[in-house]
Amino acid sequence: MTTNETLRADGRSNDQLRDITITRGWSKQAEGSALIEFGNTRVLCTASLTPGVPRWLKGEGTGWVTAEYAMLPRATNTRNSRESVKGKIGGRTHEISRLIGRSLRSIIDTKALGENTIVLDCDVLQADGGTRTAAITGAYVALADAIAYAKENKLIAKNANPLIDTVSAISVGIIDGVPMLDLPYVEDVRAETDMNVVVTGSGKFVEVQGTAEGAPFDRDELNQLLDLALLGTTELSRIQRETLAN
Amino acid sequence: MTTNETLRADGRSNDQLRDITITRGWSKQAEGSALIEFGNTRVLCTASLTPGVPRWLKGEGTGWVTAEYAMLPRATNTRNSRESVKGKIGGRTHEISRLIGRSLRSIIDTKALGENTIVLDCDVLQADGGTRTAAITGAYVALADAIAYAKENKLIAKNANPLIDTVSAISVGIIDGVPMLDLPYVEDVRAETDMNVVVTGSGKFVEVQGTAEGAPFDRDELNQLLDLALLGTTELSRIQRETLAN
Amino acid sequence: MTTNETLRADGRSNDQLRDITITRGWSKQAEGSALIEFGNTRVLCTASLTPGVPRWLKGEGTGWVTAEYAMLPRATNTRNSRESVKGKIGGRTHEISRLIGRSLRSIIDTKALGENTIVLDCDVLQADGGTRTAAITGAYVALADAIAYAKENKLIAKNANPLIDTVSAISVGIIDGVPMLDLPYVEDVRAETDMNVVVTGSGKFVEVQGTAEGAPFDRDELNQLLDLALLGTTELSRIQRETLAN
Amino acid sequence: MTTNETLRADGRSNDQLRDITITRGWSKQAEGSALIEFGNTRVLCTASLTPGVPRWLKGEGTGWVTAEYAMLPRATNTRNSRESVKGKIGGRTHEISRLIGRSLRSIIDTKALGENTIVLDCDVLQADGGTRTAAITGAYVALADAIAYAKENKLIAKNANPLIDTVSAISVGIIDGVPMLDLPYVEDVRAETDMNVVVTGSGKFVEVQGTAEGAPFDRDELNQLLDLALLGTTELSRIQRETLAN
Amino acid sequence: MTTNETLRADGRSNDQLRDITITRGWSKQAEGSALIEFGNTRVLCTASLTPGVPRWLKGEGTGWVTAEYAMLPRATNTRNSRESVKGKIGGRTHEISRLIGRSLRSIIDTKALGENTIVLDCDVLQADGGTRTAAITGAYVALADAIAYAKENKLIAKNANPLIDTVSAISVGIIDGVPMLDLPYVEDVRAETDMNVVVTGSGKFVEVQGTAEGAPFDRDELNQLLDLALLGTTELSRIQRETLAN
Amino acid sequence: MTTNETLRADGRSNDQLRDITITRGWSKQAEGSALIEFGNTRVLCTASLTPGVPRWLKGEGTGWVTAEYAMLPRATNTRNSRESVKGKIGGRTHEISRLIGRSLRSIIDTKALGENTIVLDCDVLQADGGTRTAAITGAYVALADAIAYAKENKLIAKNANPLIDTVSAISVGIIDGVPMLDLPYVEDVRAETDMNVVVTGSGKFVEVQGTAEGAPFDRDELNQLLDLALLGTTELSRIQRETLAN
Repeated sequence: MTTNETLRADGRSNDQLRDITITRGWSKQAEGSALIEFGNTRVLCTASLTPGVPRWLKGEGTGWVTAEYAMLPRATNTRNSRESVKGKIGGRTHEISRLIGRSLRSIIDTKALGENTIVLDCDVLQADGGTRTAAITGAYVALADAIAYAKENKLIAKNANPLIDTVSAISVGIIDGVPMLDLPYVEDVRAETDMNVVVTGSGKFVEVQGTAEGAPFDRDELNQLLDLALLGTTELSRIQRETLAN
Repeated sequence: MTTNETLRADGRSNDQLRDITITRGWSKQAEGSALIEFGNTRVLCTASLTPGVPRWLKGEGTGWVTAEYAMLPRATNTRNSRESVKGKIGGRTHEISRLIGRSLRSIIDTKALGENTIVLDCDVLQADGGTRTAAITGAYVALADAIAYAKENKLIAKNANPLIDTVSAISVGIIDGVPMLDLPYVEDVRAETDMNVVVTGSGKFVEVQGTAEGAPFDRDELNQLLDLALLGTTELSRIQRETLAN
Repeated sequence: MTTNETLRADGRSNDQLRDITITRGWSKQAEGSALIEFGNTRVLCTASLTPGVPRWLKGEGTGWVTAEYAMLPRATNTRNSRESVKGKIGGRTHEISRLIGRSLRSIIDTKALGENTIVLDCDVLQADGGTRTAAITGAYVALADAIAYAKENKLIAKNANPLIDTVSAISVGIIDGVPMLDLPYVEDVRAETDMNVVVTGSGKFVEVQGTAEGAPFDRDELNQLLDLALLGTTELSRIQRETLAN
Repeated sequence: MTTNETLRADGRSNDQLRDITITRGWSKQAEGSALIEFGNTRVLCTASLTPGVPRWLKGEGTGWVTAEYAMLPRATNTRNSRESVKGKIGGRTHEISRLIGRSLRSIIDTKALGENTIVLDCDVLQADGGTRTAAITGAYVALADAIAYAKENKLIAKNANPLIDTVSAISVGIIDGVPMLDLPYVEDVRAETDMNVVVTGSGKFVEVQGTAEGAPFDRDELNQLLDLALLGTTELSRIQRETLAN
Repeated sequence: MTTNETLRADGRSNDQLRDITITRGWSKQAEGSALIEFGNTRVLCTASLTPGVPRWLKGEGTGWVTAEYAMLPRATNTRNSRESVKGKIGGRTHEISRLIGRSLRSIIDTKALGENTIVLDCDVLQADGGTRTAAITGAYVALADAIAYAKENKLIAKNANPLIDTVSAISVGIIDGVPMLDLPYVEDVRAETDMNVVVTGSGKFVEVQGTAEGAPFDRDELNQLLDLALLGTTELSRIQRETLAN
Repeated sequence: MTTNETLRADGRSNDQLRDITITRGWSKQAEGSALIEFGNTRVLCTASLTPGVPRWLKGEGTGWVTAEYAMLPRATNTRNSRESVKGKIGGRTHEISRLIGRSLRSIIDTKALGENTIVLDCDVLQADGGTRTAAITGAYVALADAIAYAKENKLIAKNANPLIDTVSAISVGIIDGVPMLDLPYVEDVRAETDMNVVVTGSGKFVEVQGTAEGAPFDRDELNQLLDLALLGTTELSRIQRETLAN
């Protein structure tokens, strides 16, 4: 995978991530937290760990991990109405919350978690494309810290290992026929095909969600997008590891 | 792709669709309608065409296609509460409605549709796995008939061609390590990986949504699932063509 | 009661029902079900039986029967918004759900039912007048089958007899001064007076709901409408018995 | 119709109304208002008249009359949750609001009303059975005054006559086999059959809503109940006339 | 504090209350009730006492007092939509309900109340300014009667004394630079500064809520308003005492 | 006003503010924004300016300023449910949103603003007491920048001066009988009396909201609290000026 000459607005090559910053422990109150930035996209991820599980899981000896995604009204170029004011959650919000929850559950051993519940809140403070992938990537860091907290506080046995892998996510898309990595908003709206890929630290797929926004795509394009995505998630995995090592 | 010896509960080979039935014009009132059955899954799809478009599209000279998916409370083995009684739509319903809408829009030339709105209602009367893929496949038939109706009634110019392709969808999944086509409910709950694939009549992808329900999946498994899905949508395309030819 | 010369649009005499069809067991999943058709009106009735009762009835030794009525968005000539999307149930829906529930409870011995709950879902798939009366008539068949199921599965004692009578319902109305039986939509909108009558198999009234849509009605007109209604419910009772005898 | 020896708790004969009081103009702000009392039942009825009609009626040259019924949380023996706090209106509230609206519309000539809207609010301040019938009876007085106001203020032409009749309502029921007029709460809960009858000043039926709460009822019982109801509404009509004559 | 020459529309001096009427026991069903009138403002206050407390207080040995404020749709000059119909409670309603609850809790010893809950419903039947202050003043009377009821019925020990003081409230404001007591609607809309003051019978402040509707106010104006308010609440306290003495 | 010896948990004297930080322009998208910190309390304030006004103000030639306050679910020590998920806004949220809106409108000349709308969003990212006062203080900075933006972009005439003063707010309270300035959460829960004071840059009151959480307060205590509050807002005004001067 090499860069081509169609310069992107921000000067990146086609296979290059935006600047990624993870501020671990941004929130003083949550059991785990991370402010993650993919360029101008900023998502505050917190992990709230509480002993006990929802009623339908009681007595099963397994934990529960779920997620909620939301966006501040002025995270975007023009203001959106608050979902709390409208009194209902939109389809997009629901869909992304579910995606984040599934992604994080894929690398959790709920038996090892014991009867504890972790809620991941991913609140977009500033949106510039890729908010759901930033949310998954940041939520992993918050989750890892919440689990460390639980061990220190003996909510989870010391030798238990609820985290069976790491997970990160990235968006890829085809713009003017060219596959590109990590789309900011200006590119996202122009993409013919848009794909969000969630990948474990060990390089396996958790979610592949490709959508033809403009023209349908063929097998070859699909393969190019997956190659590019794996390049991105490999780098994100490395950054997550470094962040958690500090 | 060949059948293997692990017999499926319903005796199908791994690359075989369930019995597919499309009853065109099941509803006497809608501009287009189809009762589609994938085995025991039954979805009533209606297309409601009305002149005019939502306010935000007015004067653009383009039409609008949208979809709503819902399930009767006793479409499933145990009764679910009605979303109208709960007063809110669940995340799953939202997500599938959006998927159906995007899928059908992908094969519509909204300029050629003119300032007309088509709402596709996909109501699951009986659910046995694959309801979203049956809905997309049936909605295409209802949509095609609604467009034919619009031409006959001069809501769309005779030589306009809003339908630029056909579209159908199928689910595939990996069960005990074996890729299988068109999962009924009993298989769906056991699948490690579950994928819904939406494909045009010309064989291109509109949506690829793969989810690791159990273990993450690798590139090779992804490829096998896509092969199987294309086998299924090729057959579904043929059935759609035949249904509309009668 | 004899036919008069004012031919009805569908050629029926004034005291004649539309074609009535009851497809018993239409749903493979419910404990009891019936797809009932009064001419073009089609209502899917399912009975969901579950052991246990709502909290406020616990320990009383009596069962509970309730009903929910709804209409698919395109059951009518023009599409209606979904109540789930609007986030609230309309007055008409509420009113009919309550009527169906009361009607079915009137022929149930809740002591004999034991601590079991039966929910009757009546979903109008196609509406052409008389949907509430078709719903009651079909719900009875679904209810009878759910009770038979409960006996077979020993949820109700073999010698218990929760069904103390049968019940059916019909609409009658006065059009241009002439009383008529079983009004389709085109007649319903023209009726000066509209009455829904729910009657037991033994010929007693469960509900009499007469409404002057246009001009108020006198005692004599009321009596003619009741005569006509009893004619209709006698026939519906016979059809219910035959359906359940097969 | 004569009294029998089964003394009612409040000493009335079976064909006797409770004390009826109508305080006309109780509200200083509404165009018409009445505080009506049927014994301990107290309903505040206001009529709000505004020029103009809802959008769907514009340009038709006809007016609109509608009603809303509600109950204060402590109008009853034990407190009920507020529907505004619950965020939804219950089925009973909806049903009664619709009944009041239909009843008042039955005696209005909407052409003569012109493009004016009248909203009747019937708020139960104290409930002791018969709230819906008191509401209809009181709403008529408020309506009549609002129309008089409109004439004085030239919102309706002087010679227009939107009120084509008067309307009142009463409940009747069968208790221990005996038909009784105007049931207070203690009788209402014991009634086998309960009927609300809405009658014009000229003695014609607007609504007949009979419900078998316990045992189904026969034709003869229905007739006795109707006789009793007409006795009551004749008296209520007289009281309405006197009230408006002052 | 003396009257000045700017005659108020209703002829009162600036430091004079409107006519205050408290009809104790207006409701026959509530444990305590009062219809309070501040001029044309009429609020029905009921106190509903039930044994037991909300779940989060169980076993603490303390009681709970809360309040709900609402307005009938035609309590005002033009009709407002019902909050139950809109499906949500407005900010103003919420704010006043909370204020009433806090005010009454300030003079209650919840330990002495024992595990009982009192809900104060304040429903504005007619609004002409000062509805929240009338509500607090009337709710105190209803509360006192409910506590007396509880003692008589041995829900509270005879020697327990949950009421540690009395409480009343009044509005004051600055109009054309002149401080005035107890503003009716016509004055309220013209006030530059508007203040609601809640005071105990012993003359201490429970709530001081001053708002600059027009121009910000200085320390001196604040002091004049507080003086005026204390004059009013002293008088209201006296009226409360007299009402409860009868 | 001097410090006393009761050391506060964070070592401040009783008349000392926490560390105040205002990061102007924190959001890249809003017309004005500020991340404000009062110790550990962090509120993101954005001002969204759009040409045009709500329908009910059209053609009046005046602008509109409104505010919405909200809290992230894990801004607090234990997680709260999202109001968007619950489907309704709580009373506290409503009340604070209204307070912020009134406070900012008090220093705006809406005529000079022209037909423009400014929405102030105050989202609490971390809560440690005083969130509403931090929100008002930060919202002023965001508002000032949005107005500067509007002038630069000629949405407001160059010589127009919509900002007629500055505004800030602080909380004060009495703890163990001692008045203290700027309460963090640990102090706030212990305060007998709690007061939020909103003051203009010129030292006049916009809002005075004093509440007796424990014991009612007397005139002397009220005066001490106001003195302390003015000390705080004078300092906050200075910080606002400096922030905007950079």
